[in-house]
Amino acid sequence: MTIQAAISLATPIALLATSHDESAAQIAPDVSLGRAGSPEALDALARRCSMLTFDHEQVDPGIMRDLEAAGHTLRPSARTMAIAQDKSLQRALFQREGLPVPPWQQLQRAADLAEFARSHGWPVVLKAARGGYDGRGVWVADSQPTAAALAADLLAAGVPLIVEAWVPMERELAVLVARSPSGGLAVYPVVETVQAGGICREAVAPASIDSELAQQAIEIATTIATTIDAAGIIAVELFLAGGKLLINEIATRPHNSGHLSIEGCCTSQFENHLRAILDWPLGSTELLAPAAAMVNLIATETAIELPSRLPRALAVKGAHIHLYGKEMRPGRKVGHVTALGAGIEAALTTARTAAALLMEELEGTISEDQRPLNDGW
Amino acid sequence: MTIQAAISLATPIALLATSHDESAAQIAPDVSLGRAGSPEALDALARRCSMLTFDHEQVDPGIMRDLEAAGHTLRPSARTMAIAQDKSLQRALFQREGLPVPPWQQLQRAADLAEFARSHGWPVVLKAARGGYDGRGVWVADSQPTAAALAADLLAAGVPLIVEAWVPMERELAVLVARSPSGGLAVYPVVETVQAGGICREAVAPASIDSELAQQAIEIATTIATTIDAAGIIAVELFLAGGKLLINEIATRPHNSGHLSIEGCCTSQFENHLRAILDWPLGSTELLAPAAAMVNLIATETAIELPSRLPRALAVKGAHIHLYGKEMRPGRKVGHVTALGAGIEAALTTARTAAALLMEELEGTISEDQRPLNDGW
Repeated sequence: MTIQAAISLATPIALLATSHDESAAQIAPDVSLGRAGSPEALDALARRCSMLTFDHEQVDPGIMRDLEAAGHTLRPSARTMAIAQDKSLQRALFQREGLPVPPWQQLQRAADLAEFARSHGWPVVLKAARGGYDGRGVWVADSQPTAAALAADLLAAGVPLIVEAWVPMERELAVLVARSPSGGLAVYPVVETVQAGGICREAVAPASIDSELAQQAIEIATTIATTIDAAGIIAVELFLAGGKLLINEIATRPHNSGHLSIEGCCTSQFENHLRAILDWPLGSTELLAPAAAMVNLIATETAIELPSRLPRALAVKGAHIHLYGKEMRPGRKVGHVTALGAGIEAALTTARTAAALLMEELEGTISEDQRPLNDGW
Repeated sequence: MTIQAAISLATPIALLATSHDESAAQIAPDVSLGRAGSPEALDALARRCSMLTFDHEQVDPGIMRDLEAAGHTLRPSARTMAIAQDKSLQRALFQREGLPVPPWQQLQRAADLAEFARSHGWPVVLKAARGGYDGRGVWVADSQPTAAALAADLLAAGVPLIVEAWVPMERELAVLVARSPSGGLAVYPVVETVQAGGICREAVAPASIDSELAQQAIEIATTIATTIDAAGIIAVELFLAGGKLLINEIATRPHNSGHLSIEGCCTSQFENHLRAILDWPLGSTELLAPAAAMVNLIATETAIELPSRLPRALAVKGAHIHLYGKEMRPGRKVGHVTALGAGIEAALTTARTAAALLMEELEGTISEDQRPLNDGW
């Protein structure tokens, strides 16, 4: 989707991918094969480009520092990436800045769990300090024996751990911020996400929270962007619990919670990511309709031939369908649907209808009177 | 721009281009080099694709008929393309269908001009029946000696000619229609264009005409789409003269007058072109704001380095900039800017401001208070 945005700005992208079958590699005109963990591959790419950016956080900060030392421009930088990758480093930094994080500590020994739970209660959340994604690397444990056994196993396997208090959250929110190296900031309307099994299922904007809370969320996100010296898009995921905001995760790249910006906002997160890393003026982030909703297409065990289902889903008026050309591995995000509307429910209904026609076992095709009506925003 | 739309639908495009420097070839992942006039190049492409479509009307209908005879699917078809290419054939067909065309006739001999002018007055318009584009192939002659000499030269050079009455037009309009092989139609809001030197400079939607006239324009366009058995987008350019509509030109492909649909309409003309040729349900064409405006970026004799000017133009809030990566040859469309607004003037101001910052000699950069304000639609 960043490549789609780059086309309009006549900004050539050279892509590093592990295979020509990768989603982005299928549509990029300039693909080098190589691993993001290979110093040689990154160096060869950097020599051909004015700057490097990343669509995940799994690049070794050591390699990134070497590239910077060799004079290459990386946005985000090695330092920003190191913070994004390491929940322990991140939590400590945010705490120092007075930002709201759940009670937490680094877990050196499984035995330390008991005392943490005495202070903060059960369940506790164990998180791999590095390497998690889409729910992987997060475990909720509700009693001492389970938690201690799990922690001992993970620590023995060399997984660095943190433990956090379990947060009885009311809502999950996300704030996307584009930040340019010269300090320019553009903040998107606060998004509300619905997660299941650690994977984002739906996102809507604006979030159903009062303006004071929205302002707090935006202040937390912009403070983080500045604190970590972000370049490009960052996403800050927040819990709303007991009327208060707590930082859950951050991502230093265009993020699933911002996909609705492609059709929903004046400037998409992908175009603003490019503008930000190139230190160009940032585009307006305002919503183009009263509400926008996005539903992820997540592969299941059921074998589905998505392209053959596309036509019937396209019959849903106002549904914007994005397929990623990915193989259908269970749990994998293989596309998304966005819709705009006069309200959250209207937008969600449109997006969900198209998503169901793509992903679920339904009889027949959609008929004229099943189509969500445009509600005239 | 069709390729950008195809990415979201995971629909692979194989591109035939004459050089890797061509605009589309720069961003396409799958480019074959060859000429659109080469039967071998088209046949080789057709063998790799489920269907062929075209982004210009300069493909030999004879070659296209051979491809169809060999079992390949062409959308538009050879027959549709033959009509699109030949103004004489086209005018005769439209006249038979009772559609409004300016007074015209085929011009076999320069001597026939005098009688045509006696019936319809001076000036007259000479048009190459085939091969014109962006004002090339159209000559306005205002007296018998000039017209006769020009016509004699052109006929001697083998250019097939028609002569038309000059129309004292009040406005130029365009209607875009997406038509699928199974007969589905989606019609875009009537666009008003501003032309100079035969080249479209600006387009706005909706056109400032009453709803009855808009309905007439739409009826003409849909009748043409059906008459020529269109597949994909067709654009029908109309003159408004003395309160009446007259057909000027048609195009059987995504068209410059529809570029504002990318940000301005629920479904862009490029996505609807794909949906139409693939016989998928067509997307909503409704405007996303009260008004949309597009300004073309047209290269002049002045040497301009567009990419270096991009940042200052991006500072214009609400301007959507599209650069085509084309060499700056005078008269060539090298990009466009679209903006939405509460009214035509507001949208035009935004688009023109960004276009001027890209193309004109201006001092300094845009300051905060020069930026077009979003007017809250």
